[in-house]
Amino acid sequence: MAETHSPDAHTSDQGRTAAGDSYDSLKAAPVQRVRAAIRKRRFNGQTAGLAPGRLQANIAILPASHALDFMRYCQRNPKPCPLVAVTDTGDPMMRTAGDVDIRTDVPSYNIYRDGALAGTVDGITDLWRDDFVAFALGCSFTFERALQEAGIAMPHIAANATVAMYRSSIETRKAGPFGGGTVVSMRLIAPDRVDDAIRISAAYPWAHGAPVHVGDPQAIGIADLAAPDWGDPPIAPAGIDDAVPVFWACGVTPQNALRLARPPICITHTPGRMLITDVDERADQPFVGVPAQSNPTKGD
Amino acid sequence: MAETHSPDAHTSDQGRTAAGDSYDSLKAAPVQRVRAAIRKRRFNGQTAGLAPGRLQANIAILPASHALDFMRYCQRNPKPCPLVAVTDTGDPMMRTAGDVDIRTDVPSYNIYRDGALAGTVDGITDLWRDDFVAFALGCSFTFERALQEAGIAMPHIAANATVAMYRSSIETRKAGPFGGGTVVSMRLIAPDRVDDAIRISAAYPWAHGAPVHVGDPQAIGIADLAAPDWGDPPIAPAGIDDAVPVFWACGVTPQNALRLARPPICITHTPGRMLITDVDERADQPFVGVPAQSNPTKGD
Repeated sequence: MAETHSPDAHTSDQGRTAAGDSYDSLKAAPVQRVRAAIRKRRFNGQTAGLAPGRLQANIAILPASHALDFMRYCQRNPKPCPLVAVTDTGDPMMRTAGDVDIRTDVPSYNIYRDGALAGTVDGITDLWRDDFVAFALGCSFTFERALQEAGIAMPHIAANATVAMYRSSIETRKAGPFGGGTVVSMRLIAPDRVDDAIRISAAYPWAHGAPVHVGDPQAIGIADLAAPDWGDPPIAPAGIDDAVPVFWACGVTPQNALRLARPPICITHTPGRMLITDVDERADQPFVGVPAQSNPTKGD
Repeated sequence: MAETHSPDAHTSDQGRTAAGDSYDSLKAAPVQRVRAAIRKRRFNGQTAGLAPGRLQANIAILPASHALDFMRYCQRNPKPCPLVAVTDTGDPMMRTAGDVDIRTDVPSYNIYRDGALAGTVDGITDLWRDDFVAFALGCSFTFERALQEAGIAMPHIAANATVAMYRSSIETRKAGPFGGGTVVSMRLIAPDRVDDAIRISAAYPWAHGAPVHVGDPQAIGIADLAAPDWGDPPIAPAGIDDAVPVFWACGVTPQNALRLARPPICITHTPGRMLITDVDERADQPFVGVPAQSNPTKGD
């Protein structure tokens, strides 16, 4: 497999269509069909809006030598790093998230060597190692959908733009080589909907949960809202002059921590092209199925 | 330090009083004074009701060789194993839980070798190793207090009895050598308070959260409520003939998983004698303090 460089890892292109499946053709498809298209390399585009209702996740794959420290980093920073699944060492199947082969079921992967981007590929079967551990971290798609369903405008989605993201002065709690500042995403919310936005997103701890800050950007070290560090400049809801900036912890935080830690190898999803799990995003726990609830041989 | 066997690890004795501090003398004391008494080995008794408002935790200490699998087990089973803190490998300070030295700040420790109880001690300074990792898991004291404050009777507490606990047929999700059934604690609740009990306990995910089952014990493999596998027989609330059995995931679950996995060494708290952390049990995240919220050198 050739490693090809993506000119801009943050573009939201619609994936290949020549010999594959278009984003539009997958938009109404069930998760099984979407995953099959990704697994067969017929689709490698952005996943926002696909398989609605299924939990999507950021991915980080590390050697076992770095796995315990990274898992501690996630435990200590659950807002930016909400851990929803971890594979067994060397096992490419992410069993608690459904029928997921982490080597093939992400549309596009970024390969980092010693902290530097070394390539972008649409499968890692030939890179998989028996000391690899894969982590899935929840993402903002889940709460954005819930906010929209409650009638809270998400103008960046309507404009097909990427949400504005900023480096903040909120430090994460360190673990081994992992640390650094919290990256936040910001959405401008009408003043009379801010309380609703807080309450609704708080119900999704697996997807960054409640905001980490509301209001004055300078209070968390952000000088200029019009100049985000990632993504597109923010868009206010139509007709709202006094929209309030609301900041959520962002999945770019662990990506940054991974780059700063410079592990010999680390594989992530390409931004915007997430793992789509089988997990119901409304579940109170991010797992597929339920454990056995009864044992007919006992208790009779 | 001599390892002395405890005749019954499940007794709720009031700790030494001869040369130390009595439970009653500590009952109204702030957490700093309680911890100082434990650290100086002036108190080694049960901790229910001490330092009210502070999160108490089950403890498991393992060699690094078993730490990643155990942490995965906790991630996959958050109801019985709500992970609130993990130390860095070899570091005895549990920094995210406050001023906690895990070698001295638990009233009493059980030492397991190859899965078998090898002794009970009131300090592990001389057993500490530079490959040890300590895990703190939330416990039911937190939600029991919240239920009581809402006027939901906890007759076992009033009777100074241990809550009834049962092996259930609800299997945990395995991770490496860790697995086995979920142990549940059961409280009899007046029918008109069951919904409240579910709602209130759900607000404490760091303390087992909402119940795992309500009603028919046989549905989760429990034959006889009057014969618990651990603890004392259940007590119904006074004057309630039709109390409903409500089952919560229990911290004995990981203790069992640890014994079944038979690691060469594992150290736990002695049941009932928990780590008292500095964490506010009402906090939405189980950490002491907050990360920096502003950086005055930036954004001007």
